Amino acid sequence: MPFIRECIVTTLNDDGSVHIAPMGIHESDEELIILPFKPSTTLDNLERSGFATLNYTDDVRIYAGCITGRRDWPTCSTETIDGARLENCLAHSELEVVNKVDDKIRPQYICKNVHESTHHPFHGYNRAQSAVLELAILTSRLNMLPQEKILQEIEYLTIGYEKTSGPREQEAWGWLMKKILAHINKDE
Amino acid sequence: MPFIRECIVTTLNDDGSVHIAPMGIHESDEELIILPFKPSTTLDNLERSGFATLNYTDDVRIYAGCITGRRDWPTCSTETIDGARLENCLAHSELEVVNKVDDKIRPQYICKNVHESTHHPFHGYNRAQSAVLELAILTSRLNMLPQEKILQEIEYLTIGYEKTSGPREQEAWGWLMKKILAHINKDE
Repeated sequence: MPFIRECIVTTLNDDGSVHIAPMGIHESDEELIILPFKPSTTLDNLERSGFATLNYTDDVRIYAGCITGRRDWPTCSTETIDGARLENCLAHSELEVVNKVDDKIRPQYICKNVHESTHHPFHGYNRAQSAVLELAILTSRLNMLPQEKILQEIEYLTIGYEKTSGPREQEAWGWLMKKILAHINKDE
Repeated sequence: MPFIRECIVTTLNDDGSVHIAPMGIHESDEELIILPFKPSTTLDNLERSGFATLNYTDDVRIYAGCITGRRDWPTCSTETIDGARLENCLAHSELEVVNKVDDKIRPQYICKNVHESTHHPFHGYNRAQSAVLELAILTSRLNMLPQEKILQEIEYLTIGYEKTSGPREQEAWGWLMKKILAHINKDE
């Protein structure tokens, strides 16, 4: 498997508004590969515009927000491509699609990094941020997992989360847990 | 609990050489708090010099290396304090101790961030890096945990690790697993 960057992908919709989606981007030599599912808004936007922005943020509320219907995060224009980036990101990469490998489920958009900017320093790892990210992934797969497995995973993630979180991580965790509990209660 | 930054703390030894230690640093308003154990080299160096550097790196081999006896990582001089930083870090903060709260186990060194530099852009989260960090924490606690718990945790961490790792994460994971297996085999 290739190295995967978990980041927030922003693309422009047909009407000029910004679409925000958390995705795992594959690194391959000098290229970055976006693999959107069919059908998806990111895929439509990549097809039409040929550009995308990778946003590297340590505000995990944006990941948790996208999974729980909170997609309205401040953005601003990119510097070199026709696109947008998150205002609240540590750094971002502006990508141009240079090639495509079609697929029935997840086509590959092979991109060149045409510009990169740093906005704020990275302040190290935070176990609660990692736990929120894993909880967000879990939340996006609730329908595929047995309840026992879901509860086990939450129990494990809670350890690092409780020891190291700040207000942003707590807000993100709360949104995700609310969605998970609604799913569990629906099943019972 | 406060927000905790997991980073690599570098301090100068009495002979001018550099001591490297992975630590969780507490954020508190405008201050950063280092909590070294008694006794420890970081504590001795903080007492003597009054300075420390927080290194924010995405090279998880440095975390895994410190836990497995590989502490020889390239460093260079800091910009404003009498200290050193890791060459291979995304950003670093130069700290001056401004206050101290003594404690029998973990005294608190309350520090002011006197300088901060960014060297490379953050490229987003990576689940394998988070898994290596958790595995490093697990490795540092082997003597306190039952074997069943150790194996359970490895099984969980392996999922994100296998899907997203690159060569650096694989090297770090290998060092930690070798130490964990030696511990398990010793017990059997």
